[in-house]
Amino acid sequence: MTNHRKLRMGMIGGGPGAFIGAVHRIAANIDGQIALVAGAFSSRPEKSAQAGKDLFLDPKRVYQSYDEMFEKEKQLPEGERIDFVSIVTPNHAHFDPTIKALQNGFHVVLDKPMTLTLDEAKQLDKVIQETGMLFCLTHTYTGYPMVKEAKQLIANGTLGKIRKVYVEYPQGWLWKDFSDEGNKQAAWRTDPKKSGVAGCMGDIGTHAMNLAEYVSGLKLDKLCADLNTVVPGRTLDDDGIVLLKFDNGASGVLMASQVATGAENNLKIRVYGDKAGLEWQQEDANSLIVRHPEQPDQIYRAGANVPYLSSYALANTRTPAGHPEGYLEAFANHYHNFARTLLAKLNNQTPEKEWLDFPGTEDGVRGMAFIEQVVKSGQSEQKWTKFEI
Amino acid sequence: MTNHRKLRMGMIGGGPGAFIGAVHRIAANIDGQIALVAGAFSSRPEKSAQAGKDLFLDPKRVYQSYDEMFEKEKQLPEGERIDFVSIVTPNHAHFDPTIKALQNGFHVVLDKPMTLTLDEAKQLDKVIQETGMLFCLTHTYTGYPMVKEAKQLIANGTLGKIRKVYVEYPQGWLWKDFSDEGNKQAAWRTDPKKSGVAGCMGDIGTHAMNLAEYVSGLKLDKLCADLNTVVPGRTLDDDGIVLLKFDNGASGVLMASQVATGAENNLKIRVYGDKAGLEWQQEDANSLIVRHPEQPDQIYRAGANVPYLSSYALANTRTPAGHPEGYLEAFANHYHNFARTLLAKLNNQTPEKEWLDFPGTEDGVRGMAFIEQVVKSGQSEQKWTKFEI
Amino acid sequence: MTNHRKLRMGMIGGGPGAFIGAVHRIAANIDGQIALVAGAFSSRPEKSAQAGKDLFLDPKRVYQSYDEMFEKEKQLPEGERIDFVSIVTPNHAHFDPTIKALQNGFHVVLDKPMTLTLDEAKQLDKVIQETGMLFCLTHTYTGYPMVKEAKQLIANGTLGKIRKVYVEYPQGWLWKDFSDEGNKQAAWRTDPKKSGVAGCMGDIGTHAMNLAEYVSGLKLDKLCADLNTVVPGRTLDDDGIVLLKFDNGASGVLMASQVATGAENNLKIRVYGDKAGLEWQQEDANSLIVRHPEQPDQIYRAGANVPYLSSYALANTRTPAGHPEGYLEAFANHYHNFARTLLAKLNNQTPEKEWLDFPGTEDGVRGMAFIEQVVKSGQSEQKWTKFEI
Amino acid sequence: MTNHRKLRMGMIGGGPGAFIGAVHRIAANIDGQIALVAGAFSSRPEKSAQAGKDLFLDPKRVYQSYDEMFEKEKQLPEGERIDFVSIVTPNHAHFDPTIKALQNGFHVVLDKPMTLTLDEAKQLDKVIQETGMLFCLTHTYTGYPMVKEAKQLIANGTLGKIRKVYVEYPQGWLWKDFSDEGNKQAAWRTDPKKSGVAGCMGDIGTHAMNLAEYVSGLKLDKLCADLNTVVPGRTLDDDGIVLLKFDNGASGVLMASQVATGAENNLKIRVYGDKAGLEWQQEDANSLIVRHPEQPDQIYRAGANVPYLSSYALANTRTPAGHPEGYLEAFANHYHNFARTLLAKLNNQTPEKEWLDFPGTEDGVRGMAFIEQVVKSGQSEQKWTKFEI
Repeated sequence: MTNHRKLRMGMIGGGPGAFIGAVHRIAANIDGQIALVAGAFSSRPEKSAQAGKDLFLDPKRVYQSYDEMFEKEKQLPEGERIDFVSIVTPNHAHFDPTIKALQNGFHVVLDKPMTLTLDEAKQLDKVIQETGMLFCLTHTYTGYPMVKEAKQLIANGTLGKIRKVYVEYPQGWLWKDFSDEGNKQAAWRTDPKKSGVAGCMGDIGTHAMNLAEYVSGLKLDKLCADLNTVVPGRTLDDDGIVLLKFDNGASGVLMASQVATGAENNLKIRVYGDKAGLEWQQEDANSLIVRHPEQPDQIYRAGANVPYLSSYALANTRTPAGHPEGYLEAFANHYHNFARTLLAKLNNQTPEKEWLDFPGTEDGVRGMAFIEQVVKSGQSEQKWTKFEI
Repeated sequence: MTNHRKLRMGMIGGGPGAFIGAVHRIAANIDGQIALVAGAFSSRPEKSAQAGKDLFLDPKRVYQSYDEMFEKEKQLPEGERIDFVSIVTPNHAHFDPTIKALQNGFHVVLDKPMTLTLDEAKQLDKVIQETGMLFCLTHTYTGYPMVKEAKQLIANGTLGKIRKVYVEYPQGWLWKDFSDEGNKQAAWRTDPKKSGVAGCMGDIGTHAMNLAEYVSGLKLDKLCADLNTVVPGRTLDDDGIVLLKFDNGASGVLMASQVATGAENNLKIRVYGDKAGLEWQQEDANSLIVRHPEQPDQIYRAGANVPYLSSYALANTRTPAGHPEGYLEAFANHYHNFARTLLAKLNNQTPEKEWLDFPGTEDGVRGMAFIEQVVKSGQSEQKWTKFEI
Repeated sequence: MTNHRKLRMGMIGGGPGAFIGAVHRIAANIDGQIALVAGAFSSRPEKSAQAGKDLFLDPKRVYQSYDEMFEKEKQLPEGERIDFVSIVTPNHAHFDPTIKALQNGFHVVLDKPMTLTLDEAKQLDKVIQETGMLFCLTHTYTGYPMVKEAKQLIANGTLGKIRKVYVEYPQGWLWKDFSDEGNKQAAWRTDPKKSGVAGCMGDIGTHAMNLAEYVSGLKLDKLCADLNTVVPGRTLDDDGIVLLKFDNGASGVLMASQVATGAENNLKIRVYGDKAGLEWQQEDANSLIVRHPEQPDQIYRAGANVPYLSSYALANTRTPAGHPEGYLEAFANHYHNFARTLLAKLNNQTPEKEWLDFPGTEDGVRGMAFIEQVVKSGQSEQKWTKFEI
Repeated sequence: MTNHRKLRMGMIGGGPGAFIGAVHRIAANIDGQIALVAGAFSSRPEKSAQAGKDLFLDPKRVYQSYDEMFEKEKQLPEGERIDFVSIVTPNHAHFDPTIKALQNGFHVVLDKPMTLTLDEAKQLDKVIQETGMLFCLTHTYTGYPMVKEAKQLIANGTLGKIRKVYVEYPQGWLWKDFSDEGNKQAAWRTDPKKSGVAGCMGDIGTHAMNLAEYVSGLKLDKLCADLNTVVPGRTLDDDGIVLLKFDNGASGVLMASQVATGAENNLKIRVYGDKAGLEWQQEDANSLIVRHPEQPDQIYRAGANVPYLSSYALANTRTPAGHPEGYLEAFANHYHNFARTLLAKLNNQTPEKEWLDFPGTEDGVRGMAFIEQVVKSGQSEQKWTKFEI
């Protein structure tokens, strides 16, 4: 039933007007290894049906709820039913479908952050550990080949002992109050019932924190947050800065804002060690600058034919140098690595180490801990708050 | 049989090791509107079969030749057989499968340049005009949203009367002789039997010329070429510069090289009018710089949510500003627009004007004329050679 | 005795091997308005004499000490004696020569930071207020024309109400311990007796803080510092990050490091208001990016012929757009504005408002307060420390 | 009379409103090695007097004509009279003052291009050879430290055998007809009596040609020009492109325009050899990109403390890396090297080899040959015109 075949995916959420659902579908499509064959795209049945039609699905496999999807798909023959679900609902609707998917034998790709609370995340983690199901949390940015290269350069000692991490994520799209304008993306992200205890820090601060830990190979030890709600009328933070201390003694800072008027989405990381430094930013995603104290700086470039890149970067690039790959390809890398790993697993084969390099439950739990503790620190008059899980 | 459904694609060429075949498949996949269901991937049957298996195809629809594919697919029911073929073979193998596809009722997406000779291109053009079949030639770079924006800015008069066009395409990948190293890409591109009368000018010079005409809205009138074969042992040009004169009196230059050691693929165009200028380059594909003589320069940015962009740019962007889209998405835009137009045609609907903006037979014939005349000019001692078709 | 003439300058410090002394001399030279005619270049007489010779000075006016210089110059006729001194000694040797210069009737240009302690700065400030002498503190970076333009854009409301200030100053030159290598620059800057209570924060953090207040027009209200001594064996901070709160409620962050291995000197500021944002960095000093939420971003460019620039930017630019001016010209702008103001003052004329835009005693006192309080905050377990003078 | 002292300069031209005269004065000032002590700033005596006053000169040494200046200065004692003249008049007024200066024993710094005609340039060259006087032609751009580094990298073989040179100089400042607006700069540059047979090619094309030969170490062998007069009413070319062939067989292109609307002054050169390529542009003057086919690209950076730079780059840099130096410093490097060489000569010392690296009479003659032959080629129907002197 397994061997070499396309994996079958069902989607939960991602109905009309959803930004991230469309991104997930493209990411799953790109490499031709995954077929979207089922979905429960909306809590409103007519919307789910419309999405299924737009996506050329067999109407019989477009469901009114994920409960129905799990129920019906389980009854399909092994060679037809979905292998995994992709869950792209707002944060408050992550936990329930994920745990049910796992319990019903479907592997899971889940949009970040993992859950609404740290407690939920820990519960999910426990189930994942117990069931041995495969789980991917789509922290997009660690899917970029040059981010993977950065991680490898640090892991292999090129930078020496890490001293300093600067990570920043300035956005401007919530620069004003959109509550009267029906901006669906803005609405749920600024609603604590749907988004959780943090706004900006949950939506993009977690990406930055995940990137910092991924690239540096360090773990956060304590933090000091200044969170702000800049636009009047909002309940959650829409801006903040967090001082960081890592487990090896390195320090850092995480800047995230959704009210940096005019800024787009230029996530950027700089890491400095006692031998060299590096710099990557999403707006120039195919370059990685390595800075040396007494030699010319170097520009590492993404490309499937670049002889000096690590196996991790090469395994996550589709085109030769000079053919820019972007956000959707980075996203696709997570799907692709998840799918290759899942296929190996289904075939009782050992996946390549490069395929295993996608974010999972540990990233998710740490991200939820970050959200809760950054909020706690933001409310504290003490400088440092211990990062604990 | 038509209505809203995925279009079915067969591929000709693109077997193991082919760079551009994989790109075409990704481009066709991205938007989930096209299904690859058949193929004749190689002139060697076992290679074709392997490719079909790698691509999860039904072995019954993996053919030993395109002749077989046309034959068998025609016999399938209308609701099953392929709608169009994607032809990704080297240049010398463009004409025959294309004309047969058209004559057998299959629409065509064809990699550039159109054919091996101008004469072949004219024949194809005639058949396309007569049959009314849909035809797309994948000049990738006009698929970028900010290239489309550039065209619209010029069309709407923002730059005034166009004076000057600089277009450049420096590559370095053929910097040395690879004939002993089994580089498949290098081999056929430097072989006149497979590539045609031009090397560099056919492979990338035509892209640059197509981009110049597309963006500026002008037509080439005469040219003066300096072609070089820099690496010893090569038969065809691997480098060249062409002075250009356009039909409105504007002048320009086209620089293309495959021996610009260390250069990647940074196709760049600058156009200057009597009111303003603009600048776009592939390495920063999501930005378009508009330069003004007495006002601050402007940076137009790609993004599905950018209020000031033209409908053409918006229709060819998938993500909000700051989520870089690249080469594969530009390529996918041609497939997507071709597919939407084809679906409309099959349903007897009028396609949106933005969907019709993909390169076709006129681009192909002009490209072949460029190749032949640039070679002619390169051999001439006269300065100017008239551009004629 | 005054009217239109070159101003006569004496220099204190800046002997052989001093980096900043040479910079001051170039800055004073550029516009041909100031003549270096005297100096006490070193506390070692033979070094002072050598410097005077290298600088083509009349040996009679090369002094063994600044005390001697003040004494002898006062005895010269009004038409010969120096008008002002430029003091370029290490921090611990700022207070004494400055106060004596002022008391002896010589105006002062002083390298930053103002003094060794806040208390000294306040004393100097008092003398300056009382004597009415002219005083310039060379916070270089506010001399850049596009920094001045940034200030004017904010002052005229283009950005709306300011929300957020990011300022960063990453250097890597102290990346390792140079104490055995005789690096003169490194030696005094890492010695608390010569540098004061702060290392990195005094040397470059004060520049960043000054830039933030200058551009934003805001005043610092409280801060939260994380200071680090990264390289073993050092006494003072060589790295730090400071959370900022401004008097209008805006927040910000100041990042400064001298151990960011491989980083050069790319001071950068970003300011976001509720209408637009802006961005300037020293490595691209002649550009100022203005970011808009719903319009293309704009690139303001320095140039003496640029019609849209403010009078402040224009008055501080020497060449047309596209002829890059840099660090030395920015430095020269302070000298030039100081000199033009001084000449006006000596002639009982009213200086132009643009000439008055050079840093002075208020900047100096605030800078010293910053140094003391950033160290205090760095040692505190409380998050916020009030910024007080 | 010589030994260690400031050199005394007289200026010819550069009166009120002259752009380049002011630049020359700043360039001479920067390093404190040259004193402007005399001048004949304008053919209108009252203007010359006013300029002298603005520049704080002794009125006795402000002359009504250069003839008078040569006459009177010669009569001054050796320890007072000028050592050299700086000639900054429009092109048609280069020959006469230069030849008279040389014949009267004054060394010369002359603004480019050398003369109005090639014949004049040859005559000057002859006199310079015969008299042994020192002569500097201010082709500004070869004064940049990273341009010098580029030359050295090519000279030492880092790039291998040179294949290709792209040099471009797009300006937009003559984008429209300014003849009614009293733009003094535009007026003489578009007047053949004052500018010579070429407009754009004489003004900036010669800079580009000089840069190409300087950096590549190659000599131009033949050329093919397309010159245009784009703005109606002009007599001279305001735009053009020139195909180049060099003496080693390498080819290239030179693009120069003054009607590239919105372009500033971003002179750029790219050179490709059979081992590596390099890239420099004035807008990022302190960086030099070296591109490698199978290694990461490198960014060489200007800075007086950069250990990997050549002695030529280091000798032409004043500040540590990260303190951008620009156009005025590049200009000053020519003055500085000329002055150091002149002082050595006056003292019968051997100048350092780095000091001798300033443009001289060979550059001037070749530049004039370029102007004449580019115009000839522009009028020819033959593709190639031999470059001859």
